Amino acid sequence: MVRPVPFRFPVEVRYLEVDRQGVVFNMWYLAYFDDAWTAFLGEGGLPYPSMLRDGHDLRLVHSEIDWLGPLGFGEPAEVRVGVARIGVSSITVQFELWSADRLVATATTVYVVVEVAGSVASPIPETLRGAIGDVAPLRA
Amino acid sequence: MVRPVPFRFPVEVRYLEVDRQGVVFNMWYLAYFDDAWTAFLGEGGLPYPSMLRDGHDLRLVHSEIDWLGPLGFGEPAEVRVGVARIGVSSITVQFELWSADRLVATATTVYVVVEVAGSVASPIPETLRGAIGDVAPLRA
Amino acid sequence: MVRPVPFRFPVEVRYLEVDRQGVVFNMWYLAYFDDAWTAFLGEGGLPYPSMLRDGHDLRLVHSEIDWLGPLGFGEPAEVRVGVARIGVSSITVQFELWSADRLVATATTVYVVVEVAGSVASPIPETLRGAIGDVAPLRA
Amino acid sequence: MVRPVPFRFPVEVRYLEVDRQGVVFNMWYLAYFDDAWTAFLGEGGLPYPSMLRDGHDLRLVHSEIDWLGPLGFGEPAEVRVGVARIGVSSITVQFELWSADRLVATATTVYVVVEVAGSVASPIPETLRGAIGDVAPLRA
Repeated sequence: MVRPVPFRFPVEVRYLEVDRQGVVFNMWYLAYFDDAWTAFLGEGGLPYPSMLRDGHDLRLVHSEIDWLGPLGFGEPAEVRVGVARIGVSSITVQFELWSADRLVATATTVYVVVEVAGSVASPIPETLRGAIGDVAPLRA
Repeated sequence: MVRPVPFRFPVEVRYLEVDRQGVVFNMWYLAYFDDAWTAFLGEGGLPYPSMLRDGHDLRLVHSEIDWLGPLGFGEPAEVRVGVARIGVSSITVQFELWSADRLVATATTVYVVVEVAGSVASPIPETLRGAIGDVAPLRA
Repeated sequence: MVRPVPFRFPVEVRYLEVDRQGVVFNMWYLAYFDDAWTAFLGEGGLPYPSMLRDGHDLRLVHSEIDWLGPLGFGEPAEVRVGVARIGVSSITVQFELWSADRLVATATTVYVVVEVAGSVASPIPETLRGAIGDVAPLRA
Repeated sequence: MVRPVPFRFPVEVRYLEVDRQGVVFNMWYLAYFDDAWTAFLGEGGLPYPSMLRDGHDLRLVHSEIDWLGPLGFGEPAEVRVGVARIGVSSITVQFELWSADRLVATATTVYVVVEVAGSVASPIPETLRGAIGDVAPLRA
């Protein structure tokens, strides 16, 4: 797998995501991170629809976000993704949102693998482990 | 102020918020907490539009969410709100999302007071302090 | 069925739905109308989750919206719902969004009944017909 | 201006936009069309933030959408944009959403030019007229 480290995912801020303060409303960052994570897995060889067809899904069990500054409409934006830890059935992922050379937000999320048909945690399947590749945290 | 402790805010899950897993997609929890926080302040005597007219706004600088289970369409849902800490210019708020007697998610967010015209942190105005009332954490 | 005519559904504008123009972004009106339609059916005795469990769903095939003015954060809002036509497998519904005594938007949507398991149009089931009640257009 | 006719804008369906029917929820089409329209103007030399800085904005006054079929997660999607009519202060735009060679939805929207500072309709500014270019409807 030749995915660059860290993985970078461009974000185009939607007009509708910007609130009357003129900045992206907080919840949309979770959408950006979700999009970036999906692209990360796709780039690693596991498109999300394939994973679903294989009967696996990922459920978010924890997220932490720190906002360092605002992001406005028309500003450049990029999410960087790094996997910080792979457990038996959980994966810890770090995100950073950059606007050019300004760090806008950092985040950490934890996903648990579940079966599509149910909601019990299950071991990380090999296809997913392969798509993730090596652990490569963005920060300590 | 006679707001009950903890403050409870009913949530009606929208059909569009439920993803193909059949559960509310993660980002909408931030919408629920934002709605509940706005209602909390309104109940305390400070409708959000009034605060904006007074030149103050709140910016989210930190959020942490833990999901304990899923929430589906048509299920009852209620957000409970408690203020855990009031600093010079920041407010730490705890949230819980309950579906009947099942705890679905817990969250902590930190808001900073900013001037509407700019983005510099400013001291918590008296109107806001009054609307918040006493510190009353939901949990340690 | 004692549902008033027209059916009225209160809307609370979310902070996040308001864009940098200070008005509700257009797409959220479709969310309001969907919420109001779901409430209309629920009030008529058919909660949406029940309809889904019965194997029926509704798919939007047409919508038309006219905006007469803006809707801001903190402004009162109410959706009025009236069914204009019931066909073999389709239902034409009229909506109006009022802010106090100001008409903000009018809309007409057409739904087609489909089976949950597929996407072929099917005749309107009796439970749905009962929940809709009589045709009662809001306007010509 | 060398913008191709019709203008084509790629859409990446977000996981969160897909509902429990497994298809994109209706309101997101308005987001796609808004994104495509913004890109259309940018491609024509008028980035939306520039137009706002010039004191002009566009308000949607009418939209009509016909859905011919569903759009699922992971499916290719492209919006095609054509301007059907330019009036004194209004612009009529046609959209089509294609998934590969399948036409998923058609839409027509009408925008009115307003001043950012107010909400009165104003004549179409030259910069906007230039960015739009010639009238080129997608269909009769």
